[in-house]
Amino acid sequence: MANNNRDRAAPVPLSQVVIDSGFWAERQRVNRERTIPAIYRQLEETGRIKAWSMARTHDIPKERSTVHMFWDSDTGKWLESVAYSLATHPDPDLKAQAEALIDAVAGAQQADGYLNTYFPVLHPEGKWTNLRDWHEMYNAGHLIEAGVAYHQATGDPKLLDVLLRFATHIDATFGVDDGKLRGYPGHPELELALVKLYRETGQERWLNLAAYFIEERGQEPRYFDIEAARRGEKREDFWAQTYRYCQAHAPLREQTEANGHAVRACYLYAGIADVALETGDEELLTLSRRLWDDLTRRQMYLHGGVGPSHSNEGFTFAYDMPTETAYAETCAAIALAFWAQRMFHLDPDSRYINIMERAIYNGSLSGLSFDGAGFFYANPLAAYPGVNPMGRWSGILDSGHFRRVDWFFCPCCPPNISRLIASIGEYSYSQQGNRVYVQLYHENSAAFDVARQGFSLEQVTEYPWDGTIVFEVNAEQPVSFELALRIPDWCHDYQLLVNGERIEVELERGYALLPRQWSGGDRVELALAMPVERVLPHREIRQVAGQVALQRGPLIYCLEEADNGPRLANVCIPSTTELEAIFDGELFGGVAVIKGEALRIELSPDNSALYRFHSREQVAESTFRFRAIPYYLWANREPGEMRVWLRSC
Amino acid sequence: MANNNRDRAAPVPLSQVVIDSGFWAERQRVNRERTIPAIYRQLEETGRIKAWSMARTHDIPKERSTVHMFWDSDTGKWLESVAYSLATHPDPDLKAQAEALIDAVAGAQQADGYLNTYFPVLHPEGKWTNLRDWHEMYNAGHLIEAGVAYHQATGDPKLLDVLLRFATHIDATFGVDDGKLRGYPGHPELELALVKLYRETGQERWLNLAAYFIEERGQEPRYFDIEAARRGEKREDFWAQTYRYCQAHAPLREQTEANGHAVRACYLYAGIADVALETGDEELLTLSRRLWDDLTRRQMYLHGGVGPSHSNEGFTFAYDMPTETAYAETCAAIALAFWAQRMFHLDPDSRYINIMERAIYNGSLSGLSFDGAGFFYANPLAAYPGVNPMGRWSGILDSGHFRRVDWFFCPCCPPNISRLIASIGEYSYSQQGNRVYVQLYHENSAAFDVARQGFSLEQVTEYPWDGTIVFEVNAEQPVSFELALRIPDWCHDYQLLVNGERIEVELERGYALLPRQWSGGDRVELALAMPVERVLPHREIRQVAGQVALQRGPLIYCLEEADNGPRLANVCIPSTTELEAIFDGELFGGVAVIKGEALRIELSPDNSALYRFHSREQVAESTFRFRAIPYYLWANREPGEMRVWLRSC
Repeated sequence: MANNNRDRAAPVPLSQVVIDSGFWAERQRVNRERTIPAIYRQLEETGRIKAWSMARTHDIPKERSTVHMFWDSDTGKWLESVAYSLATHPDPDLKAQAEALIDAVAGAQQADGYLNTYFPVLHPEGKWTNLRDWHEMYNAGHLIEAGVAYHQATGDPKLLDVLLRFATHIDATFGVDDGKLRGYPGHPELELALVKLYRETGQERWLNLAAYFIEERGQEPRYFDIEAARRGEKREDFWAQTYRYCQAHAPLREQTEANGHAVRACYLYAGIADVALETGDEELLTLSRRLWDDLTRRQMYLHGGVGPSHSNEGFTFAYDMPTETAYAETCAAIALAFWAQRMFHLDPDSRYINIMERAIYNGSLSGLSFDGAGFFYANPLAAYPGVNPMGRWSGILDSGHFRRVDWFFCPCCPPNISRLIASIGEYSYSQQGNRVYVQLYHENSAAFDVARQGFSLEQVTEYPWDGTIVFEVNAEQPVSFELALRIPDWCHDYQLLVNGERIEVELERGYALLPRQWSGGDRVELALAMPVERVLPHREIRQVAGQVALQRGPLIYCLEEADNGPRLANVCIPSTTELEAIFDGELFGGVAVIKGEALRIELSPDNSALYRFHSREQVAESTFRFRAIPYYLWANREPGEMRVWLRSC
Repeated sequence: MANNNRDRAAPVPLSQVVIDSGFWAERQRVNRERTIPAIYRQLEETGRIKAWSMARTHDIPKERSTVHMFWDSDTGKWLESVAYSLATHPDPDLKAQAEALIDAVAGAQQADGYLNTYFPVLHPEGKWTNLRDWHEMYNAGHLIEAGVAYHQATGDPKLLDVLLRFATHIDATFGVDDGKLRGYPGHPELELALVKLYRETGQERWLNLAAYFIEERGQEPRYFDIEAARRGEKREDFWAQTYRYCQAHAPLREQTEANGHAVRACYLYAGIADVALETGDEELLTLSRRLWDDLTRRQMYLHGGVGPSHSNEGFTFAYDMPTETAYAETCAAIALAFWAQRMFHLDPDSRYINIMERAIYNGSLSGLSFDGAGFFYANPLAAYPGVNPMGRWSGILDSGHFRRVDWFFCPCCPPNISRLIASIGEYSYSQQGNRVYVQLYHENSAAFDVARQGFSLEQVTEYPWDGTIVFEVNAEQPVSFELALRIPDWCHDYQLLVNGERIEVELERGYALLPRQWSGGDRVELALAMPVERVLPHREIRQVAGQVALQRGPLIYCLEEADNGPRLANVCIPSTTELEAIFDGELFGGVAVIKGEALRIELSPDNSALYRFHSREQVAESTFRFRAIPYYLWANREPGEMRVWLRSC
């Protein structure tokens, strides 16, 4: 079924993109030095490392309930992040640590290829009995991604081979053939991992298995009903009450809206795009565009986060965008970025990459502290210290929602943001034939091979703090390729110079195309105007009606109490205020802040009256100079209020 | 320990207040004709009536789990409501129905006086083993209130005698004496019921038992820990995680803030006020004032609802007032009215009655549909169809939060609003020595006895639609008493005429006092100016910063989609708009609506962009004439949006 069109667009591998300076170099340094070690320490302390040896050593924690069925995915994502890091920054100690863990993983594999820390030891009869709720396939997917990444990074096939055996076991167990179970993942993720496995090995069976999971999902009779009946349960007993939660309420080809648990949804949709790309299935492309449009035009937060609701960690309904209680899980924004990148390669248009950039720089990056060792699960658009958006009451507040924490009971987000940062090079360029797409602007040097001509591009820029990007071509000999520069949707005014000469081009699907025979030393300068913009919400978004947000370039900004004092709800940004972007070299290693005049409009503090009549009151207005910081940096100073959307007056 | 100061303030009994016309006559008619029968039908259909005979008939529902441990309280509140109704509107059929039920209740009483439908039959070993979570004492309290009310209304002591035997059993089981358990109610309510029992019987033991429950609450060692240990549980296992939930986190005399489950809190505080009144305990008076000030100055919604959070059905922290997700349970506003009335009699000041009036006319009355057979549990200050403020996801919305329903799994609110309406006469006047306080203005005729002189007052008014109230004295002979007219806190301009002559008086604790020798035919006219007021929130209430609400007289208003179209979040009320109150005789039997010019400010509908830059957009402003209706009448037409707080511009 594979579509072997080799002329299609594909990401340029991260091993070809050297990031030694600029925005992402610093984020990657912190990831290597702080985040990867901090996550390993947590894996160790929580027993996740030792768990791989439980079957052999019988060293089972006394409190068996501390071992959880999603643990293996944390190992998987950590190994994947390490692989990306090793690919660009070799580190023998880290490699040795990873290899010891890979040995432990390999040692836990059962004779039939099955691989899981939880079930063989703690619940052997539970194996493959509840695909809906238990995470065996989800874990498998993350381990497969790690196996592929580790093989690509180091050439070492050990983990990949282990996972190929596990994938073989899964393929033998699930499918439409007689004697197989017609199951599919409760928590999608395996689909996209199998496509990676297919691409890495060239073995079509993995693509076919991914395609099977996508076709089977939501078909009648529902597999989740069948397995529930085997467990003596009814459909109504499902705790989430609806298969929308796991996107299995209808066959995928019939689905029209992004639904349910947001991370599941975006991983699944990414898998659909992968299969569509590999098979050339036009209906899956149409489905992908339909879901994409629904999600990004009706259900996406300004910061690229998705899934407003805590109770299902997911979607509610169109235009429902609570701010303080937004869930907008870090993993969901990351998953949206994954999906966006795949959509581009399926349907090359900058609109996908614009969203990818939004999700990466805002709703994903906010999941990590500036120092690299604190994590957010939820990414609200407003915060008030002491509020618990989970809806619990005071006294038992979950501080994880206005202050980043070391770890979570379900720590899916920490290794996810780590692997995204480690692999940012892979999101920077795409190539299609002799066209080189520049997707993300940041300082780096990337090597390309176009029609067997090698050359490299040096990208020099202060982006995202400044909109000027300079490219220098390094080539021994003249080389013919088309440079496709993304003109971001936030930019309405730009200049393009080639070797100092102004060039005007028509955009094609959001890209400025520069086909040319290039020579070493050729220089392209792209100047994206980056004014501070006031963002207005769609008229159906009731929660922020009458409010504005501030954006500059790809970055969404916020006001914090640390800069602006308390009671940010009473702060108004006049529509006439001049908004200035100022680079502050002292703040967080140097960031552009936004300043301007704002009003604080409020009644005098009379503590004996909660409500007063306007006819008898003077409302005080005072002016002050506000300072807004990039949203992704919020909650890195003393705890306090934060708001993205501000009253407009 | 009783304080026998008979000169203290007390409510005038409802049997002395005849309500044959005006606002409450109509509400009482609907209550008698629709609400009381509808609730009985539900009691019957859900098995609550039959449950009283389970022990004798062994006719136990197949699904035992349908029987719940709070069922008896529903019977209690229905009987109480019936008693109040019979007191003013005799009805032989209703009386016969009540008496059959009373017989069933009596038949369920055990030899030792214990009375409960659930435990003896379904869980005999559970009796009195979990005061914290199970509702035996709560049920007892509601049944005692019913017993007292039924005795007062009909003179029939049967139910009262049953409850006296149950109270005797409770008194023998709990207390500080050797051999007794030092327990107290997990859900307070019994305290105030025991004070009613004391007042009805004159037996001090019931006052002492109420006082014991109040003193013991929150003392170390905590009884809830002791009984949990007996059940093999630890404190940490408590599902609510904190004894703040049930106000047992500290001895009551040390408490400083309204905390936890709002209905529990207000019933408890009402009981404290009752005990303080009966014992003259100054420290309990101080405690009551402290809790009152905290609740009404920092934690009360504009409509008199309390308890913003769904998860604990209760309080969160000061100034936390979410609108769309407000819980503000109907029962909590009613309980606040109960407490307010008691605070007045403990500390005669109109500030308590002002809040009582606010809670009754707004956050309580909204719990009942205009037709009398639909109920709200939560009373949000904004509604958007399809939103589930419980935080569940779309597809399984609980429509009970934007549309009233017939009944609830835990139907505490329906009989509560029914008993409040049936007994409104008891909230109308208070008497202290020769002073007659007029608390609520509404059309009625009330009989008084001051120093053995009988007389009556005829109150003629269109209140709450109009602020003019006329009193006529009916007396055979001249009678000396002081008429104390409450000047509501919402009124800043009033005129007082006695027999046509303008009188100026200094207010004393919020009342205009008219001491006089009155003769039959004397006429007092009070004209309360009732302009439409724009209400502004305290500067700490972040959720409605920059917004205004409309109030006229005691009524809070709201905009509904039925009158004003959708997207109410985009509606702004200019500060210069003239606001008119207009009586609409067609709407809901005749109500004053508020009209004025409003703006609808919004972007054009571009469904391809959730967020747009102001620099590139025109924001459209259109003017329309809005219509606001009283909040308590919302959700009686087609489902749609509703907002109390509106953007101001």
